[in-house]
Amino acid sequence: MKINKTGVIELAHGSGGRATASLINDIFYAHFGNAFLDQQADQATLPPLAGRPVFTTDSHVVSPLVFPGGDIGRLAVYGTVNDIAVCGATPQYLSAGFIIEEGFSIQTLDQIVSSMAAAAKECNVSVVTGDTKVVGRGQADGLYINTSAIGDLPTHLSLGPNHIKPGQKIIINGSLGDHAVAILSERESIDLNGGFQSDAAPLVDLIQMMLNAAPGISAMRDLTRGGLSACLNELAQSAGCGFKIKEQAIPINANVKAVCELLGLEALALANEGKLVAFCPPEQAEALVSKMRSHPLGTNAAVIGEVVNDPHHFVSMETLYGGARRIAWQWSDPLPRIC
Amino acid sequence: MKINKTGVIELAHGSGGRATASLINDIFYAHFGNAFLDQQADQATLPPLAGRPVFTTDSHVVSPLVFPGGDIGRLAVYGTVNDIAVCGATPQYLSAGFIIEEGFSIQTLDQIVSSMAAAAKECNVSVVTGDTKVVGRGQADGLYINTSAIGDLPTHLSLGPNHIKPGQKIIINGSLGDHAVAILSERESIDLNGGFQSDAAPLVDLIQMMLNAAPGISAMRDLTRGGLSACLNELAQSAGCGFKIKEQAIPINANVKAVCELLGLEALALANEGKLVAFCPPEQAEALVSKMRSHPLGTNAAVIGEVVNDPHHFVSMETLYGGARRIAWQWSDPLPRIC
Repeated sequence: MKINKTGVIELAHGSGGRATASLINDIFYAHFGNAFLDQQADQATLPPLAGRPVFTTDSHVVSPLVFPGGDIGRLAVYGTVNDIAVCGATPQYLSAGFIIEEGFSIQTLDQIVSSMAAAAKECNVSVVTGDTKVVGRGQADGLYINTSAIGDLPTHLSLGPNHIKPGQKIIINGSLGDHAVAILSERESIDLNGGFQSDAAPLVDLIQMMLNAAPGISAMRDLTRGGLSACLNELAQSAGCGFKIKEQAIPINANVKAVCELLGLEALALANEGKLVAFCPPEQAEALVSKMRSHPLGTNAAVIGEVVNDPHHFVSMETLYGGARRIAWQWSDPLPRIC
Repeated sequence: MKINKTGVIELAHGSGGRATASLINDIFYAHFGNAFLDQQADQATLPPLAGRPVFTTDSHVVSPLVFPGGDIGRLAVYGTVNDIAVCGATPQYLSAGFIIEEGFSIQTLDQIVSSMAAAAKECNVSVVTGDTKVVGRGQADGLYINTSAIGDLPTHLSLGPNHIKPGQKIIINGSLGDHAVAILSERESIDLNGGFQSDAAPLVDLIQMMLNAAPGISAMRDLTRGGLSACLNELAQSAGCGFKIKEQAIPINANVKAVCELLGLEALALANEGKLVAFCPPEQAEALVSKMRSHPLGTNAAVIGEVVNDPHHFVSMETLYGGARRIAWQWSDPLPRIC
């Protein structure tokens, strides 16, 4: 029996019976179809990896589900793939776990799954295993998606906060806060005329180019919830160093800057979905940034600061006017459910 | 800053700021702590696998969160580990993705995570990577947990529905429907005086014993949503065979049988969380069942039927009274949110 694409999701679609099978077949398999799903098992058996397995997971609860520059499906692929790529591994396999609210439009689900499949293709990863649960009305907000991923890490590579050392340069691939402001403007229907677009993007290709250009890269991390300030504070703690960054060097788009001034937001604490920081030896920084600028996702790449000795592991910023202030690690993000 | 364990989850705990870090540190790390989490990265880098990677995912939305014989944490570990084990692989690594409703009790979360950690230890798997999202009140029903897992499959093993052939025996490790009835009695507060207990259990050890006792096992699958009837119908379709089972041979506990008669439920369609079916050559079936009965999770193991040639891929049952009826693949499960 074919699923009715003009209908809505019912509890039956999560029950494990024929309704579930038709949903899997007509929506998930139709978009994700590959040899691993052809195994028709509750698990995917994969070919041996060349290097070390890398494993990550993310649940996505973004609201709204569709926003300027992306949707929850695209985000669920990029976010998880980026978490694999930043350690130098090649993302290869994705799982997809759907929690759907009873009454959700099957047509919207179909569009989101189609978008996920396109994003997976773009990242050269296969969705090899999945799960679908349906909860009653009022027990979810439409749709939540968990994606987990396996990557393959070449045995010679070892990146991580423990390799961050004083003297290394801190590099970013572009402007801050675009994702958070795009979500905010859409969710709150604030007509700011800003033409905001999420920066949601897969960083795999850029990262491979970076590792070739600067083999001394010690660590990378993508900037998501909590933005640059949470990311740098976390890394400073893990690395046992301090970081000094320069406000002047940090790229922020004029429309995002305007919204931040208007609403009293701090761009450094706003979420991104296509940005990363990298740490590298000073002598490789210039070549790295120049190479990054040749990539569409690195046109605004910049050295934004450096690693210093600091027993307090503070992140401090030289302001536009020459003063210095500490970039505090905020207790919370001003915008919930941005990813 | 320490998390307040008598408090409740706030949106801040999912924001990626210090509130999230304190939740991770005081709850998740406190229970799951291991060398992989010590990497303090958004992904876990694992040692090379000896064989082929096996990958699976499950989201868990069971209601209520705690039930006789288990809780959502224990279920999230067993369910996912069992999906890896049934293909013959050794489960090794788990991811844990939490979606928590604002206002959820931190103490309850702590208890559930503690239960997950105990279950993971029991299964000899490590929770190596995780993610936490918080959604507003009324956007979830307390807590949902996604677990994904990686297993290591010896290169000589290949189990799956494509290996199921006419003449093979169909074997089960115990009684049907215990999980569904335990959930039902707890959720609906039906005081049936049945002393119902979920059968939630990890099947890893039993399965290894089975593979040693009967190297000819062609396929295994654990019985969850949709019960035995959904599982057998799915496998018959995938294998391109028919199955004939005998009602008399199928173990069902007396208290479950009574509830089914009382409420008009079909025990064959009810969910289990510690049961599996296996297919093996007829000459190995007796030794296999006898070995299974020596294991605490196989004391009621039985041959319940056999694989036959059938172009319609029907599952049929010889009833207690000698008649035959088709076991239909139901459109939905009578009980939503049982896992």
